[in-house]
Amino acid sequence: MATATESAAGSVGLVGTTRVVLFDEASPLVLDSGATVAPVEVAYETYGKLDARGANAVFICHALTGDAHAAGHHGDPTHRGWWDNLIGPGKPLDTESYFVVCANLLGGCQGTTGPSSPDPVTGRPYGLRFPLFTVSDLVRVHRALARHLGIERLLAAIGGSLGGMQALQWAIDAPEELATAIPVCASARLSAQNIAFSAVAREAIMRDPDFADGDYYDTGRRPDVGLSVARMMAHITYLSERGMGEKFGRRIQGGDEPRFGLEVDFQVESYLQYQGESFLKRFDANSYLYLSRVMDYFDPFPDPGEAARRLADVHTRFLVLSFDTDWRFDTAHSREIVRTLIANDVPVTFREIASPHGHDSFLLAVPEYHRTIAAFLRRAYRDATGR
Amino acid sequence: MATATESAAGSVGLVGTTRVVLFDEASPLVLDSGATVAPVEVAYETYGKLDARGANAVFICHALTGDAHAAGHHGDPTHRGWWDNLIGPGKPLDTESYFVVCANLLGGCQGTTGPSSPDPVTGRPYGLRFPLFTVSDLVRVHRALARHLGIERLLAAIGGSLGGMQALQWAIDAPEELATAIPVCASARLSAQNIAFSAVAREAIMRDPDFADGDYYDTGRRPDVGLSVARMMAHITYLSERGMGEKFGRRIQGGDEPRFGLEVDFQVESYLQYQGESFLKRFDANSYLYLSRVMDYFDPFPDPGEAARRLADVHTRFLVLSFDTDWRFDTAHSREIVRTLIANDVPVTFREIASPHGHDSFLLAVPEYHRTIAAFLRRAYRDATGR
Repeated sequence: MATATESAAGSVGLVGTTRVVLFDEASPLVLDSGATVAPVEVAYETYGKLDARGANAVFICHALTGDAHAAGHHGDPTHRGWWDNLIGPGKPLDTESYFVVCANLLGGCQGTTGPSSPDPVTGRPYGLRFPLFTVSDLVRVHRALARHLGIERLLAAIGGSLGGMQALQWAIDAPEELATAIPVCASARLSAQNIAFSAVAREAIMRDPDFADGDYYDTGRRPDVGLSVARMMAHITYLSERGMGEKFGRRIQGGDEPRFGLEVDFQVESYLQYQGESFLKRFDANSYLYLSRVMDYFDPFPDPGEAARRLADVHTRFLVLSFDTDWRFDTAHSREIVRTLIANDVPVTFREIASPHGHDSFLLAVPEYHRTIAAFLRRAYRDATGR
Repeated sequence: MATATESAAGSVGLVGTTRVVLFDEASPLVLDSGATVAPVEVAYETYGKLDARGANAVFICHALTGDAHAAGHHGDPTHRGWWDNLIGPGKPLDTESYFVVCANLLGGCQGTTGPSSPDPVTGRPYGLRFPLFTVSDLVRVHRALARHLGIERLLAAIGGSLGGMQALQWAIDAPEELATAIPVCASARLSAQNIAFSAVAREAIMRDPDFADGDYYDTGRRPDVGLSVARMMAHITYLSERGMGEKFGRRIQGGDEPRFGLEVDFQVESYLQYQGESFLKRFDANSYLYLSRVMDYFDPFPDPGEAARRLADVHTRFLVLSFDTDWRFDTAHSREIVRTLIANDVPVTFREIASPHGHDSFLLAVPEYHRTIAAFLRRAYRDATGR
């Protein structure tokens, strides 16, 4: 297990990613669909220490393109995990109090088994032969990791976007293993517009001639055009119009005067192109397809009767958070989750946080947001430990 | 000149598109950039008759992917022009009162000279050698058409989106030739988010391997993947989240049960795919690049001083319209135009119309919208003719 070295500066220090095989031929992962996957290896990191009673574990559920490296660094202190502002000594996920775990998702491409992993039947990458899975299946794998780490009951599962969906599903599937859940800018049901953006992103990838029906791994080519276009488009939906206006306005890249041509000229174009290109270094197109599709199909409360059935035994305490300028999953999505939880007597606190940064706010150190999480967790920790 | 045969049903009947060469080697089109283009042929249609005093002409300015065929049909009465609900006997643009003209834009691909037209120097299509132009250049060409048709002063220039930008620019460039201007869901300055969406669309096209630096005309291949992805993405921005929710929700295409796979499953996916595919039959990728780029650079009021200078002699009366669910160019864009006009003593009436259909509302028969245009035009016609 990788254990973090904490620096004096209030940040997690040098960390490593650990991989563990949690399912194998003898005991395969059985998906909601009935399909099986084996082996399933999971990449994860931990920060802080599990206390003697095992009551201080917080599970970080990452979003569509996240990974296990949530905090600290891998050797270069200037390159830190994606949620380093939230996790560390004295931070809201205080590693002096909590044992924080983050793991790459099933279907991902950063250490956990997914479509780019070798299919044991053929020895070649699965590609589109990897079975489609559900948010429940994501939870199933991470519950196995929690057990492996000796955690019987999590203090909290927290995540933004797809990570928030996972936190919600965790409470539904295993409420006894989860004291609190913190879904941030999440949704219990994607709208037609949400699905539409994901559909166009997938279209860009799957119609790229280098996609080769998902079997691009051996070709020396990858659907880079499609994947970068998908990323650029998605990135627009993660920012707010106001935030983009403040950050870029109509400023020209590298000068004052427009060059007046079809090529990149405005700063916002240059920024998006950089986002598209740099994404290629760290992400696999097939993982993008699978993990975006999982979100489309997520619908834990298809009708009030089903919601009542699924929430009947849920006593997990919720903190539901949204951001006022998020239009990818706007506050209405969070309110709908809250309404359903309240209607079924699940304890829930809800806050809409003001932030100009749209959906991406969940990654940023918005003070009110961080304070809210810190206070909620402190209380949960006191309730769990009597401290 | 094509003159419409009007049916008894209150609709424009059979029409044809006319082409006329308005600029040639002897008298080329001189663009804002100083570049010249010759010949410039313009495709247009007309409906109704120009009255003896030439005071009843209304110019339709089409949007990014529009064309000259605004009303009536070309032989199949079930396939009508794109603004047929607005133009015709008894309709807001009443062809019994008004002489309605619609022309394809410079840089377009439906009859007016653009990047797919032969470059007289090489005999082969211009491709990216076609010079970049401005909204003022679009106006310049259409003013030449108006002169060609014997119109000295237009009763109105009306258009949605890019068409509204053209109507605004027309009033700035030639206020004496324009009694009224009706920009609908337009903008005088694209936001960073607006530019971002167009930038990703262009990226999808220009990075398609079949784009061949714009010289795809002779290759037997076209950047169809890029162009259809661009169209699908743009189409999402033309609809409102609410409108999409009402139209598609999470309904499954051709069945009740999700097929649970990566391919098209939700109705909204199928719809977008159809939009992307059908667009390929009627539009040229290079025209898409040029006409979308024209919008990015449009900025007639870069600062209050420049706005004052450009509007000093403008007495054109404005009707500025927006739609409450439009998020492509939301009402703030229209308000900004109105503010600038008011600050410079240009007469303006402004209305935000309620409609669930987002940016696309300008194409639809929203009753309040149509009534507002009809009333404004009747008054303008009375003012112009004393009738």
